[in-house]
Amino acid sequence: MSLPALFDPDGVAVIGASATPGKLGNDAMSNVEAYGTEIYPVNPSSSGTVFGYEFVDSVRETDAELALCCVPRHLQPDVIEECGEAGVEAAVIFAGGFAEMGGDGAELQHAIAETAAAYDMTVLGPNTAGYAIPHEDLYGSFVPRIRDVGTGNVGLVTQSAGVGITMSFQLTREGYGISAMFGLGNRMNTGFADVIPALDDDPRTDAIVMHVEGTDDVDALLRACQTAETPIAAFKVGEHDIADLARAHTAAPAQDNAIYEAGFDQPGLVTVSSTTELLDAGRALADSPTPDGPNVGLVTAQAGPGIIMTDFLKGTAATFPDLTDETRKRLDEILPGITYAENPVDTGRPMPEFGAVIDAVARDDNVDIVLVYEIYEDSLGYPVDELETLSAEVDKPICFTVAGPDHALEDERRQMEAAGVPTFDTPERGAQAVGALLESISGAE
Amino acid sequence: MSLPALFDPDGVAVIGASATPGKLGNDAMSNVEAYGTEIYPVNPSSSGTVFGYEFVDSVRETDAELALCCVPRHLQPDVIEECGEAGVEAAVIFAGGFAEMGGDGAELQHAIAETAAAYDMTVLGPNTAGYAIPHEDLYGSFVPRIRDVGTGNVGLVTQSAGVGITMSFQLTREGYGISAMFGLGNRMNTGFADVIPALDDDPRTDAIVMHVEGTDDVDALLRACQTAETPIAAFKVGEHDIADLARAHTAAPAQDNAIYEAGFDQPGLVTVSSTTELLDAGRALADSPTPDGPNVGLVTAQAGPGIIMTDFLKGTAATFPDLTDETRKRLDEILPGITYAENPVDTGRPMPEFGAVIDAVARDDNVDIVLVYEIYEDSLGYPVDELETLSAEVDKPICFTVAGPDHALEDERRQMEAAGVPTFDTPERGAQAVGALLESISGAE
Repeated sequence: MSLPALFDPDGVAVIGASATPGKLGNDAMSNVEAYGTEIYPVNPSSSGTVFGYEFVDSVRETDAELALCCVPRHLQPDVIEECGEAGVEAAVIFAGGFAEMGGDGAELQHAIAETAAAYDMTVLGPNTAGYAIPHEDLYGSFVPRIRDVGTGNVGLVTQSAGVGITMSFQLTREGYGISAMFGLGNRMNTGFADVIPALDDDPRTDAIVMHVEGTDDVDALLRACQTAETPIAAFKVGEHDIADLARAHTAAPAQDNAIYEAGFDQPGLVTVSSTTELLDAGRALADSPTPDGPNVGLVTAQAGPGIIMTDFLKGTAATFPDLTDETRKRLDEILPGITYAENPVDTGRPMPEFGAVIDAVARDDNVDIVLVYEIYEDSLGYPVDELETLSAEVDKPICFTVAGPDHALEDERRQMEAAGVPTFDTPERGAQAVGALLESISGAE
Repeated sequence: MSLPALFDPDGVAVIGASATPGKLGNDAMSNVEAYGTEIYPVNPSSSGTVFGYEFVDSVRETDAELALCCVPRHLQPDVIEECGEAGVEAAVIFAGGFAEMGGDGAELQHAIAETAAAYDMTVLGPNTAGYAIPHEDLYGSFVPRIRDVGTGNVGLVTQSAGVGITMSFQLTREGYGISAMFGLGNRMNTGFADVIPALDDDPRTDAIVMHVEGTDDVDALLRACQTAETPIAAFKVGEHDIADLARAHTAAPAQDNAIYEAGFDQPGLVTVSSTTELLDAGRALADSPTPDGPNVGLVTAQAGPGIIMTDFLKGTAATFPDLTDETRKRLDEILPGITYAENPVDTGRPMPEFGAVIDAVARDDNVDIVLVYEIYEDSLGYPVDELETLSAEVDKPICFTVAGPDHALEDERRQMEAAGVPTFDTPERGAQAVGALLESISGAE
């Protein structure tokens, strides 16, 4: 495992811990207090306990491998020096006011970097809201309620921690979760090229999603992507000129997006242009086998949404092959007079045979990827049994687009996910997910 | 009110009503049974009651103004003739197999159209899942649980009822609702040009959203859009060639999308390219005053999402004006050392002063539209009080993009909506909503 002191620290010091609710050092304590090793609240001005842990005066009095640094920027050089002396292996610096400010800030960051290098210390940040590994109950962040974030198999590495947190909460609201989220901030000595291999090594991470504002180590980033065996989806912000903002935010260099576009054009890597697409691409990549080709078999219970999905996919590498004679015969046996038995297959309305129709299309030799759309009906439910069988027997991606009343679809949706059938919420999101799977094999043949 | 027998029928006949759960005629009964006028289940093969209403043998025995026709296609001509004799003013034909099939189907539809014309009867469909007016508890549809759809101020007119139902459920899942939803299907004698004026007249509809696959009466559609005083958002499917599918679905003619693109380029009309954008544009248009110009003031508590929104808006007509000296002075008083006090204004983290920062930007004379982004924190909440004051005192759109843990944001989100501040879920959706408001004034100056 790379970055072990971030993934699996034995002992965590919260430097600048506070017993006062609302303070950064209290929020950080409240997030990390449940993690299963010793926690050390460090604050020479405090005594007593916070969340049941006794305050200590200095990190030197601890056996912490990880330090969460909740102190203001001007105290940060001393704190990192003390961390080094104490044998801390990794630190997270939340404070801003460093390289992204230029001048003094850049100098201060440079000094901290030298100290960290002398002690061979991994530093996440500065200028980050931190990171989270929900599977381990490990939340190295001051963000309130980050412990609500669910567990999942998508790993997030975001230049902006705010974007990583936004996406983590979105995934959770939608019923999913994350394997890990790393907000990089200023990338002082821990950048994309460090976190990507760590997530690639992480057995709980089945896909990596990446938010990039701009970074000096583009070559290292691209090498890390090439080396990774885990599929990756990338969102590079900056279609238009946002250079001033990105520099002021995370000290991002002014760069032409074309560098990234060219570098990201590789098998196993998908590019998207929004946070929602990034999450959907990540889930599709994480849960699906790699498709053998671009041939999409589309099964829909409602023509209108099916046409929207077809229209979208016609703008991608997707092809819509004819179904084999055998499949057509099966479909005709299943549903005599089916509404539209070409590809897309339109059943006209959900019906008990819907699962058998999906089965027929999924087993068609001409089809590499199956995309399904259905508005949920209580009396029919989703064809979960058929999907479980298919997922076990047919090694093709099956993306299921669900629609309908609110909580009606939650349970069966979870069952489908558990069977390896990722689900999506709107016609466009289902189609975009298939588009992502297709992009992941482009250039691979 | 246009189309009164669809909006406000006195008596509803369900022709082909059934007491058997799962049958179309039972689903339609279950949806309409709560509507506050007499309901007549019509079925000569049934006796007794269904949902407390006594079966009758023929629509001629009823005083229904509206008929929901749940019978197979071959019975439809006789049913419409009987409806006419009975004085029915409007009918919904659910069955498919008409113009969209060509040949016999087209002839059958033509015959029904002649009968309807003879009796001056409004017919929705054929080949539709119907319509819904939740404010009236009026659900002229067989779709199970359509009664779960919430009330709101956006009216939907969709060529595909499946798309209309999908969007109605999506709005409801996200905490909103609709004023009405009309699925047009084959548009036999009730098309876009009929429903748009009806929604324009409807006092509960503050914006109209429209899904178009293709229609012969393009000119009438465009005239209806021009005449409507209610803002409209339109999603024309068919960026690529979907002509075969659209014809087989709703008898849509093969047309060049350019006809629509040119026609839709008018003030008060916004075009989008997905169902989610359609809903967001609709909510933004429904809840916001018309902006005076393209000058966006962006206030964000987290830089990363703010940069994503800025990047998106730079691809639209948006401009980001400098704030006035007065505003900068106010900001400096509110938050000395604010992270980024240009426009966008980045506060670096949510804080108690966040509402005051929004207030300062919203009152800036250089700003026409305010876009806000904030990750929710329990201890701070959203600045609801400030937004309520602003909304009352400042006649500018304020779009609030919310992020955070699941249910934490529901209550305050509703309060913001009630105050006339529409809320959006992801950076892109907030930015797209502002983009829609900007497009609505393009060409208007």
